[in-house]
Amino acid sequence: MKTAFKTIALIGKYKNPETRDQLLTLAQFLTGHHLNVFMEEDTALHSNIPDYRTLAIDKIGKNSDLAIVLGGDGTMLTAARALIGDEIPLVGINRGHFGFLTDLSAEQMLDGITNILAGKFDLEKRMLLFAKVLRDGQVVSQGYVLNDVVVSRGSMASLIELEVSIDGHFVHKQRSDGLIVATPTGTTAYSLSAGGPILHPSLDAIALVPICPHALSNRPIAINSASKIEITLLRGEDTRVHLDGQLNVAFHEGDQVLVQRADKTITLLHPLGHNHYDMLRKKLHWG
Amino acid sequence: MKTAFKTIALIGKYKNPETRDQLLTLAQFLTGHHLNVFMEEDTALHSNIPDYRTLAIDKIGKNSDLAIVLGGDGTMLTAARALIGDEIPLVGINRGHFGFLTDLSAEQMLDGITNILAGKFDLEKRMLLFAKVLRDGQVVSQGYVLNDVVVSRGSMASLIELEVSIDGHFVHKQRSDGLIVATPTGTTAYSLSAGGPILHPSLDAIALVPICPHALSNRPIAINSASKIEITLLRGEDTRVHLDGQLNVAFHEGDQVLVQRADKTITLLHPLGHNHYDMLRKKLHWG
Amino acid sequence: MKTAFKTIALIGKYKNPETRDQLLTLAQFLTGHHLNVFMEEDTALHSNIPDYRTLAIDKIGKNSDLAIVLGGDGTMLTAARALIGDEIPLVGINRGHFGFLTDLSAEQMLDGITNILAGKFDLEKRMLLFAKVLRDGQVVSQGYVLNDVVVSRGSMASLIELEVSIDGHFVHKQRSDGLIVATPTGTTAYSLSAGGPILHPSLDAIALVPICPHALSNRPIAINSASKIEITLLRGEDTRVHLDGQLNVAFHEGDQVLVQRADKTITLLHPLGHNHYDMLRKKLHWG
Amino acid sequence: MKTAFKTIALIGKYKNPETRDQLLTLAQFLTGHHLNVFMEEDTALHSNIPDYRTLAIDKIGKNSDLAIVLGGDGTMLTAARALIGDEIPLVGINRGHFGFLTDLSAEQMLDGITNILAGKFDLEKRMLLFAKVLRDGQVVSQGYVLNDVVVSRGSMASLIELEVSIDGHFVHKQRSDGLIVATPTGTTAYSLSAGGPILHPSLDAIALVPICPHALSNRPIAINSASKIEITLLRGEDTRVHLDGQLNVAFHEGDQVLVQRADKTITLLHPLGHNHYDMLRKKLHWG
Repeated sequence: MKTAFKTIALIGKYKNPETRDQLLTLAQFLTGHHLNVFMEEDTALHSNIPDYRTLAIDKIGKNSDLAIVLGGDGTMLTAARALIGDEIPLVGINRGHFGFLTDLSAEQMLDGITNILAGKFDLEKRMLLFAKVLRDGQVVSQGYVLNDVVVSRGSMASLIELEVSIDGHFVHKQRSDGLIVATPTGTTAYSLSAGGPILHPSLDAIALVPICPHALSNRPIAINSASKIEITLLRGEDTRVHLDGQLNVAFHEGDQVLVQRADKTITLLHPLGHNHYDMLRKKLHWG
Repeated sequence: MKTAFKTIALIGKYKNPETRDQLLTLAQFLTGHHLNVFMEEDTALHSNIPDYRTLAIDKIGKNSDLAIVLGGDGTMLTAARALIGDEIPLVGINRGHFGFLTDLSAEQMLDGITNILAGKFDLEKRMLLFAKVLRDGQVVSQGYVLNDVVVSRGSMASLIELEVSIDGHFVHKQRSDGLIVATPTGTTAYSLSAGGPILHPSLDAIALVPICPHALSNRPIAINSASKIEITLLRGEDTRVHLDGQLNVAFHEGDQVLVQRADKTITLLHPLGHNHYDMLRKKLHWG
Repeated sequence: MKTAFKTIALIGKYKNPETRDQLLTLAQFLTGHHLNVFMEEDTALHSNIPDYRTLAIDKIGKNSDLAIVLGGDGTMLTAARALIGDEIPLVGINRGHFGFLTDLSAEQMLDGITNILAGKFDLEKRMLLFAKVLRDGQVVSQGYVLNDVVVSRGSMASLIELEVSIDGHFVHKQRSDGLIVATPTGTTAYSLSAGGPILHPSLDAIALVPICPHALSNRPIAINSASKIEITLLRGEDTRVHLDGQLNVAFHEGDQVLVQRADKTITLLHPLGHNHYDMLRKKLHWG
Repeated sequence: MKTAFKTIALIGKYKNPETRDQLLTLAQFLTGHHLNVFMEEDTALHSNIPDYRTLAIDKIGKNSDLAIVLGGDGTMLTAARALIGDEIPLVGINRGHFGFLTDLSAEQMLDGITNILAGKFDLEKRMLLFAKVLRDGQVVSQGYVLNDVVVSRGSMASLIELEVSIDGHFVHKQRSDGLIVATPTGTTAYSLSAGGPILHPSLDAIALVPICPHALSNRPIAINSASKIEITLLRGEDTRVHLDGQLNVAFHEGDQVLVQRADKTITLLHPLGHNHYDMLRKKLHWG
């Protein structure tokens, strides 16, 4: 098979053997076509697939041309986060339940991958955000997100009070359960449950979505992705900042989280003719 | 002054001297009319008012005919909770900001109290809920609420999964940030921020309002107050059950919280002609 | 077959032959069991079923013991409206799509009807509203509704302005696209699309749901069903009052619509063990 | 006074003398500084100001350097619509109620205008949409909008059914009361009442906001402003397409409305330091 993707890394569902058969089928298919296959280290371990060379997730970017992810959107999110900065393209294969990020169906896996290897794909760059948590002006934590940065009250506390500034300009003080800062990709995740709008991935925009705000007029807004967002915790115990729902950091009164568009993106490969509206219609059961 | 209320307890804002002047004015007025005045113990301490006999909050019900509460809705909520079971009527006096539960204005305090002492008032019973948290079938915590029972995820966790049954009948499994079970009184508190409807206090109903539910069709419902609600935590770390936002209890996977209408009520005295729609219009800035 | 229902009227989908086969099957089954069958007049005509005695819809109540309605919720709504006042019980049979009001499935039609004829059913009374439209103090139109009374702007106009009073007490002025006054039954219909809460049918309550209100704090409320609601059109051209979405009346500036609980109900027969939460879960695709 | 704006047109509230005093004060101030003043023709008539040269609204763009609009957002919308294509900058002066488009206060009118004439202003371009209504493939109506294109059911009808395509790609069929296609400017107008998000004016985006959609998952989306939107009426009587709520066109079954970003913009001049978040905070009463 002639393809630009000579070395391919396979990443399965995290700590879960459910994707084992798909992984094996795919690995055999790829090696059958004389391509190099790496199994992601944890995937190999948890799926009990000892027969392929393995790579730690953080080595995949440097040592492969393509990463194929099997699982749901959660698996894809984890993989994409680990591969940020390496510009390696990702393909997502779902396991029956069509996902926003995993748009190749299990049934058509081999045909789909064959097409992608043959260069028949739509390439899409997805915007990322970069967040820094500051305490007394010092960065205590930082990271990229593909979905969202969420400031969220804890289980012990009631409302928290936040101050939001954008590009150095005071926007408002807000009493709420928290605030979601979402990429377009993130607007179909938690943000949607909190009443946020869906932003098309091609939009250079960031959504700010309050979680259960005390003031009923406190509505979701979408702003230019060039904006720098600064959120200060004025009042609230047991509050945390969450990055993609996978990492979280204590957020004390007076702490700030700065969020802005990242200088990196992730690259998704879709089947030709892929359309985001089709995904919305299917996932949200639109008529 | 001829009045049925011979002994009156005064309760001020908790750990806050702001209501000191009002308390003194009111106490002098009442003693000037030969009525017995008790200052609630903590109120006397924090407001530095040593000149009146004091009573612990839990002795007020048995030893007074009327409790006058000065502060905001939070103060009123705390006082009302402490007095549940004693059937002592409460009057709420706000400090400038009109409250849902404190409808006598500071400016008209003495006239308002004079009228109430003279028997010119509207008496309103407010429904309460009673909640029991069960672990392995044993009650680990229980209590009354005037506003709401809230099952809520913690700061570390993402979505929780709950199962809801009503009157022994399975309603649904829900993935969300939590679930609010509110009295009509509670529907203008946290429930409103979560998108719940406003239920008139005269309604024999309980509102179930999901917090940021994953399924967009998972909408607030109002059910008969005779219903018995059972919520089981299927999945979720760091989850808690909150009673009126003042007490909270750990809620582990497999735990249940049972909520039903309480056998007690609280009694509010309002100025004659009081109307709940006036309160809604003022508080919510309706046209 | 021993049954209290000796004479049974069959009502099919309005002006639509789709229910013809079901009607024939059911009619043959019933006559086979020596029961009297009437085919509703329009049903017989549009379904081309000439072989049974017919009755005009408004004669059915007086001349039958039971009305069986085949079709969707729309058909059931029309039938129920026509039979208000006759206290004749209704059974709804859907055609594949489960309905809120038509809970007997097409597949189990004969078994279901057999059970109902044998007295194995749950009987449920549903609350109705009665609405009067007044112009210059004179009633210009009036009627019952099972779902809702809707005041709604026309296609030419922008916002309308309404004044709402309840039990003679001014509630608020509202600028919006209109206002829905819904029975509990109606809360799963149009009201839900407008953001209203779901009220359990056993609740003695009426929902007031603004349609696209200008003020964001203008939220849905549920009030006691004993309340008398008065809505006055302050400003708005081309406005109409809709009764169950089936009848509508011009509504001029200064006109009023008075809405209150009706003195009649409708009676639904459900399969034994029927539960409203099951219907909500299925219809709304709750988890 | 040295200024690039030699000839200035004044536009007052439509058919309303309320802005007369402001108009006179402003006209005298400008002529006192040796600038040419035109009074818009209808403004002169309805405000009874015969002393200045008048211009029909459609001549203002060609014959003036600056248009100053006195009134509310409605007046500004009308004026801006009339001046589309002439690229003449607009300044909005409110009459006490701060507006989204009229951000110079009446009290500081002369100082504000002095600054603007002196070149001290922030210039902002606002995106417009262009809509064409097609019947049998022929354009039956077309026009620009600053706020929104709204497809809306009439007063006689229930739900309408629409089909939405974007860039030639089927998005979904929708049953609803209608659909709003809004510019960022329009997202603080009708769209907000229908549950839409607020889009910052600097965002190259278009909001699609369903009005009371039947499917609860049918949520607002924001898409790239380069998108071409095509809405077809599948079913619905008495439906109309509204342009900025000021013009409307009959919309029959089978008709289409095509909406895309216009090739023109309007130009607003704001006081230096103007910030859109300040306007949102004030207008929406954010904390």
